[in-house]
Amino acid sequence: MTKSRFTMRPVGFVRSPYRTTDEIPHGIGARHTTEGSLEILPEFEPGLADIEGFSHLFVLWVFDRAGKSSLVSHPPSDDRPHGVFATRSPHRPNPIGLTVVRLLRRDGNRLEVRGVDMLDGSPILDLKPVLSSVPEAELRRGWLAEAEARGVPRRNPPR
Amino acid sequence: MTKSRFTMRPVGFVRSPYRTTDEIPHGIGARHTTEGSLEILPEFEPGLADIEGFSHLFVLWVFDRAGKSSLVSHPPSDDRPHGVFATRSPHRPNPIGLTVVRLLRRDGNRLEVRGVDMLDGSPILDLKPVLSSVPEAELRRGWLAEAEARGVPRRNPPR
Repeated sequence: MTKSRFTMRPVGFVRSPYRTTDEIPHGIGARHTTEGSLEILPEFEPGLADIEGFSHLFVLWVFDRAGKSSLVSHPPSDDRPHGVFATRSPHRPNPIGLTVVRLLRRDGNRLEVRGVDMLDGSPILDLKPVLSSVPEAELRRGWLAEAEARGVPRRNPPR
Repeated sequence: MTKSRFTMRPVGFVRSPYRTTDEIPHGIGARHTTEGSLEILPEFEPGLADIEGFSHLFVLWVFDRAGKSSLVSHPPSDDRPHGVFATRSPHRPNPIGLTVVRLLRRDGNRLEVRGVDMLDGSPILDLKPVLSSVPEAELRRGWLAEAEARGVPRRNPPR
């Protein structure tokens, strides 16, 4: 017997300088060095114990302003469409974002981080420590590498 | 105005050899080289277009048999408790698992992968391509590195 729906709730919210998606760097060569903070709700603060020993965290969050999902995506890094699961499009069947941030410091229930690419106020679902990396030499990046090789110019994503 | 609940639905299910959590390697030194497959529901298959060009995928899935959540975790890698957000415990406020797998091949709506650590039948919420890595030299692994240095013996996790 399989449940067909799962209900998630915010454990906190992202504080970022980005108020609109246009302000967020997108596409090939986009660097995410923007600083922001992860404000965890006080009731979940005990779950942060010992998190300060980790340099990098996975942030799972909600694209809460993404609108309609689509199985085909037109990413800003390419002039060709791709399946949504082969992209980081916000318009996903389950609108969950995944961002790796560098943890700069913790101040109680507030984590100061570098690398935010979320809109201000985005709900956080979970945090996890990054424990290991895929060696760069083993990573194949499919259509993204091909688009880079073709020299596709960066453009703003369609909305 | 902020939504306080988000409803997620499976886009597919994991096929793995693991029927019980005791069969899954845990703790320090656990290697995840087990092969399995990600069966995406036919209605979402168009979202897989071009995924085969990527070597590694993030799988977001549900710990659907984890039971009660706890903000304090007793991970198998240590004899000391830690905050749940500093661990990979299944007993999280939002029971979402995150696993990096190597994509071996695609057969229609079925992805054959290496590195499964999920129970058979676990619901999949999302797939994303791995586009970059944190350089190993920059990763600090907090209490986990300390426990390794102290020589904490591996044990089964409490259930």
